[in-house]
Amino acid sequence: MADRPMMHQVPSGDASGSSPADVAPAPEPTHAERCRTLVAGSSRGALSTLTTDPVGYPYGSVASYALDARGNPLFFVSLMAEHTQNAIRDPRASLLVTEPVPDGADPLASGRATLIGRLDAIGEEGRAAVRDVYLAANPSSAYYIDFGDFVFYRLTVESIRYVGGYGRMSWVDSEAYASSEPDPLADAAVGIIEHMNADHAEAQVLYCRHLAGHPDTTSASMSSVDRYGFEMIAVTPTGRHAVRLGFPEPCTDGLQVRQAMVALVTDARRLAG
Amino acid sequence: MADRPMMHQVPSGDASGSSPADVAPAPEPTHAERCRTLVAGSSRGALSTLTTDPVGYPYGSVASYALDARGNPLFFVSLMAEHTQNAIRDPRASLLVTEPVPDGADPLASGRATLIGRLDAIGEEGRAAVRDVYLAANPSSAYYIDFGDFVFYRLTVESIRYVGGYGRMSWVDSEAYASSEPDPLADAAVGIIEHMNADHAEAQVLYCRHLAGHPDTTSASMSSVDRYGFEMIAVTPTGRHAVRLGFPEPCTDGLQVRQAMVALVTDARRLAG
Repeated sequence: MADRPMMHQVPSGDASGSSPADVAPAPEPTHAERCRTLVAGSSRGALSTLTTDPVGYPYGSVASYALDARGNPLFFVSLMAEHTQNAIRDPRASLLVTEPVPDGADPLASGRATLIGRLDAIGEEGRAAVRDVYLAANPSSAYYIDFGDFVFYRLTVESIRYVGGYGRMSWVDSEAYASSEPDPLADAAVGIIEHMNADHAEAQVLYCRHLAGHPDTTSASMSSVDRYGFEMIAVTPTGRHAVRLGFPEPCTDGLQVRQAMVALVTDARRLAG
Repeated sequence: MADRPMMHQVPSGDASGSSPADVAPAPEPTHAERCRTLVAGSSRGALSTLTTDPVGYPYGSVASYALDARGNPLFFVSLMAEHTQNAIRDPRASLLVTEPVPDGADPLASGRATLIGRLDAIGEEGRAAVRDVYLAANPSSAYYIDFGDFVFYRLTVESIRYVGGYGRMSWVDSEAYASSEPDPLADAAVGIIEHMNADHAEAQVLYCRHLAGHPDTTSASMSSVDRYGFEMIAVTPTGRHAVRLGFPEPCTDGLQVRQAMVALVTDARRLAG
């Protein structure tokens, strides 16, 4: 984690996520980190290229991808496919990646990122290096990974549009994206949330009452967790409040999260007096 | 159904879906009909537009949509959104719509359609006519449907790329798409398939043995159904075979499907002798 840029964004102060004035803003992932995590969490997106006939219409197609070390998408495409022919004529392209939308949820409230850049063929000399990376992310490509009429392409990202839901959006610096790490807790998050909500409801009430500025909390449940902290919905007599708490130190695995949660309970009990 | 173009595509004769030579090809939806059904079955896609700065990169974004009577997508977009600003400068656009991918399935085996055309604002005089259509398809838009900084746009489709999975793809004529009807069984299909596989396994074996040219079928299950017929996987001592059977007449609801299935059982028993 040493070379991770320290550019945490403070909460934006929207109504649903506001913190009382006497509570310090909790650290949270940068938009660059959120993008990198979002894109690393999928292997399929909408690739936009420019048509050849007529020239220049934007053309969306489905594409599977893997990521290189800087988060540039790698594609394995048929030379006959429309998007490949498009990229050969004009390399300008983008990849749209979206978070899964829970059943019944508003799709526009989910996160998505558009990686904009240039889509160039990877020559024979680079093929071996990307082949295994691609196969690991796309196991179903194994049966055509050595077809002669398929080629690897790389989208070299030049700019990024991030939309985290209503009101959370920005243009993300491509270098910040390239040097960010996907959230190390991304795969563990669902399990951590289920565990906290099943077995540690009381601790969450303590957090909300004594660490998050909602002393009248009657119940609380975790809604998300990342390396820097976690979010809860605190229920009070005045309604439901989105609350974020930071970990004492960034966490890279479930064991560190557990230790941080225990430390926060100790803090909360001390403040409860 | 009277004005539906009669342009059924005969099976393409690929190895997995081949019919024995003595069985007539079963009618099936045209690609235009498949596209129209696919697009009507969703309300969310990837909208590709052309960026303003720098000019002309293809830019993918998430967009909810409804359809007008000719299958042109209608959008309700913020004037501040990137895709809106893009369309104002250059109306060339496309909408990519994908079928849901079952868990664990190869995403590239699922159907998708790219509708390519021009994205133009719908003026105040047209707003009332599309407002209710849009709301019906996107109930969650109700709370901002009357915001002043949101406008309706229509993508007037000029050409369509359809990919039904590996090897099933074509450019679809935009007029054929506009005059097609979505499959009337689309919503009922899952229930029909479950019912047939739970309660009518024996009938399906009869179909495969006596109507579909696989007299050595030992078991069979339905995999899809549409207005013109249905597909089954027939299991024989030599393997699994994709089989399609046509209905005597196109069916528009579950009752007609039931009657058709009964008629086919009668046919199969007669041929069984």
